[in-house]
Amino acid sequence: MKKRYILSPGPTSVPSEVLLAQAAPVMHHRTPQFAEIAKECFEGLKKVFLTESPVLIFASSGTGAMESAVVNLLSPGDKTIVIRSGKFGERWGELCEAYGVGFTPIDVEWGKAVKPADVAAALKKTPGAKAVFATHCETSTGVLHPVKELAAVTAGTDAVLVVDAVSSLGGVPLRTDEWGVDVVVTGSQKAIMLPPGLAFASISEKAKKLSESAKCPRYYFDWRPALKSYAKNDFAWTPAVNMMFGLRESLKMLLEEGMENVFARHARLATAVRAAVAALGLELFAEAPADVVTAVKVPEGIDGGALVKKLRDEQGITIAGGQGHVKGKIFRIATMGFADTYDVPVVIAGLEVVLSQLGYSFKVGSGVGAAVKTLAK
Amino acid sequence: MKKRYILSPGPTSVPSEVLLAQAAPVMHHRTPQFAEIAKECFEGLKKVFLTESPVLIFASSGTGAMESAVVNLLSPGDKTIVIRSGKFGERWGELCEAYGVGFTPIDVEWGKAVKPADVAAALKKTPGAKAVFATHCETSTGVLHPVKELAAVTAGTDAVLVVDAVSSLGGVPLRTDEWGVDVVVTGSQKAIMLPPGLAFASISEKAKKLSESAKCPRYYFDWRPALKSYAKNDFAWTPAVNMMFGLRESLKMLLEEGMENVFARHARLATAVRAAVAALGLELFAEAPADVVTAVKVPEGIDGGALVKKLRDEQGITIAGGQGHVKGKIFRIATMGFADTYDVPVVIAGLEVVLSQLGYSFKVGSGVGAAVKTLAK
Repeated sequence: MKKRYILSPGPTSVPSEVLLAQAAPVMHHRTPQFAEIAKECFEGLKKVFLTESPVLIFASSGTGAMESAVVNLLSPGDKTIVIRSGKFGERWGELCEAYGVGFTPIDVEWGKAVKPADVAAALKKTPGAKAVFATHCETSTGVLHPVKELAAVTAGTDAVLVVDAVSSLGGVPLRTDEWGVDVVVTGSQKAIMLPPGLAFASISEKAKKLSESAKCPRYYFDWRPALKSYAKNDFAWTPAVNMMFGLRESLKMLLEEGMENVFARHARLATAVRAAVAALGLELFAEAPADVVTAVKVPEGIDGGALVKKLRDEQGITIAGGQGHVKGKIFRIATMGFADTYDVPVVIAGLEVVLSQLGYSFKVGSGVGAAVKTLAK
Repeated sequence: MKKRYILSPGPTSVPSEVLLAQAAPVMHHRTPQFAEIAKECFEGLKKVFLTESPVLIFASSGTGAMESAVVNLLSPGDKTIVIRSGKFGERWGELCEAYGVGFTPIDVEWGKAVKPADVAAALKKTPGAKAVFATHCETSTGVLHPVKELAAVTAGTDAVLVVDAVSSLGGVPLRTDEWGVDVVVTGSQKAIMLPPGLAFASISEKAKKLSESAKCPRYYFDWRPALKSYAKNDFAWTPAVNMMFGLRESLKMLLEEGMENVFARHARLATAVRAAVAALGLELFAEAPADVVTAVKVPEGIDGGALVKKLRDEQGITIAGGQGHVKGKIFRIATMGFADTYDVPVVIAGLEVVLSQLGYSFKVGSGVGAAVKTLAK
C-alpha cells in the first residue's frame, strides 16, 4: 500500500463525507425534493461568496464560469481591461479574443501583483471600458492580487469588476459585496472541497443589467434563463445532481467552521509552509503570496520536473510544478480547501526527502521543524 | 422508510458500484496515473458509440455537447437543416439561432417520426447546407427517429449529420460508423448509467475538418484544443475527475454485458412496458416508440400532473410528465440505463395503484400481468 496525499492547487483533497454524499441515489432535478437541496446550496454559496447577489451553479469547470462572464457582460467590439499576470489572467484575454471583445492588457510580470494605479490609468486611457477582468489568486504564480483596491478603482466608473477567484474563494477573504466586486467566478475543486465538475458565478445588479443587453452569442452559459430558473431553485439545463449532494455537504462544513475561521486556518497553514520554505533556504516566487498556494523557486542545479515527479510517484504526495514559461522553475504547494495542520508536516517532510535525494544541500529536518514551530504558536 | 425508484428519462438510476467508484480519493488530472483512466474511458466510449472516431468528454450537461456541435461545425450565416419534433429538436434550432446560424426547419408533429424523404427534399431546397441536426430518441415524445435512413440521405451531400442521442445512446443501437453519422452527442445521466454532469461528442473526420474552419466563437466547448489534448489522453480544461472514475466503471459494466445484449435488454423491457400499457387500455403517444422511454397518453378525465406527483410523492416512484404543449397530457416511463427485468413490475404496479386511486376504470393487475407474461418469454 501507499498512502496518497494531494496538495496541488486543484484538484484538492475532498472530505469523505462529501464524497459519500455524492454516492446517494440519483434524484430527479425537477422535483420539489431536489429544489430544497438547490435552495440550500444557493443560500450557502451566498454566505461563502459573502454576497447577497445570486450565485449561479454551472455543470462545468471554472473556465466555463469565466466564459459565462465574458459572454453575458459584453458585446463584440466592446472595450475592456484585462490584467494578465499568469496563465489564468491570460485566459481572460483569450476568452475576450474568442468572442471579439476588445481589451487593453495590463501585463504584470509573473510573480508580481498588479498595481491598482495601473488599472486606474488603463481605465482613463480606455473611455467606455465596460469591464475589468482580474484574478484574485493567480494559481500559476501563487500571487494574491489586491482585489479590494481594484474594486475601489472600478467603483467610480461604468466598468464592472470581474474576478477569477477559482483558487482563492473560500480560502482567502473575498468580500464581494463589502468591496463591491460585480462578478466572482470559482470552481468546485479548490477551497470549496469538491471534486472538479461544478463552477459558480456571483452576479451583482450592475452585472445583471449588462447581461440583459450584451450581444455575445451564448446558450449553455446564458445567465438569463439561468437566473430565471434560479428564482425557482431550478436550473435551465440538467444540473450535476450528485455533485450538488456533495456541495450541500461541503457548504455545511465550511459554514459550521465559519468563514472567518476558514480564512484564519488557510493563513495559518500557508504561513507555516512559508516558514518551512525559508528554513530550507528556498525562495518564494510570489511577491505577494496568497494563503492558499505557495509557489517556490526550484533551487539552482535541481531538476524541478523530477522533484514533482519523485514526490508524486515515489512518496505519494502530489504537488504542482510550474506552468508556461516557469515550467521546471517553480513548484507549488497548495494548502487550500480540506487542508489542516498536519498536512503541512506531511508535504514538507516529503519535500525534504526528495530534495535530499536530488542532492540539494540543506539541514534535513529544518523545514519540518520551522513549520511545526509556526503551527505550535 | 420509503424505498425509492427512479424511472424517468434522465436522470436515471445509477449502480452503487459506479456511485462508490466516484467516491474514491480525488486525483490530479495532469498525471500519468489519471491519463491511464482517461485512456480507458476514451477507448470504452468508442465501443459504446460504435465508432473509431474520437469521443470527447465535457464537464457539462448534454446541452453543452449539443452547443459544441453547433459552434465547432458552423459559421454565422451558414445554412443548415434542423429537424424539430419535440423539445430537444427545438433546442437545435435555438442553438443555431443563438449563434446566428441559419436553418431550414423540418417541423414534425410531436409523437411522429421524421420522414427521410422530407430531409432529402429540404437538402435539395437548401443548396450549400452544411449540417443536418437530428434527434435519435426525442426524449420529450418517446419517438425513435430513423437515423440510419437519415445518414443514407446525408451521405451523398456535403452536409454532416449531427445526432442528439442523449437519451438513446447505449440503450438503442446507434451504429455511428456503419451508418455514417458524423457527430453523436449524449449525456452521462441516461443509458450511460452515471449521474448528470458529463457530456460526450463523437467527431468524424468530415466533422473535424469543418471544425478547423468554422467561425462561430467558442472557447470552453472548442473541439480544437480538446482534440489536441485527447491525443495525449488529456483535457484542455480540468475534467470532472471523480465522475470519470464512475464512467470507467459504468463503461466496464456495459462492455462486459456486451452492447448487443444491452440493446436487447432495453428492447425487452420497453416491449413489456408497452404490453402493460395496452393491457391497461392506455394509448402510446409515440408513433415509432423508442426502446428507452415509453410515452403514454393520459386517459381522458385523469389529471396527468396528479398522476406523476402521486406516483412520486406517495409511492416513491419517479417517472416524468409531459413537457411543452403536452404537459399534463402524457406521462413517460423510462427503462434505460441501469434498468432490469423487475423494474417493469415495480413501475407498472405503482402506475396501477395510482390510476385506480384517480378513478380510472380498468382491471387492476392486468398491466403487471401483461408485463410479466412478456418478460417470461
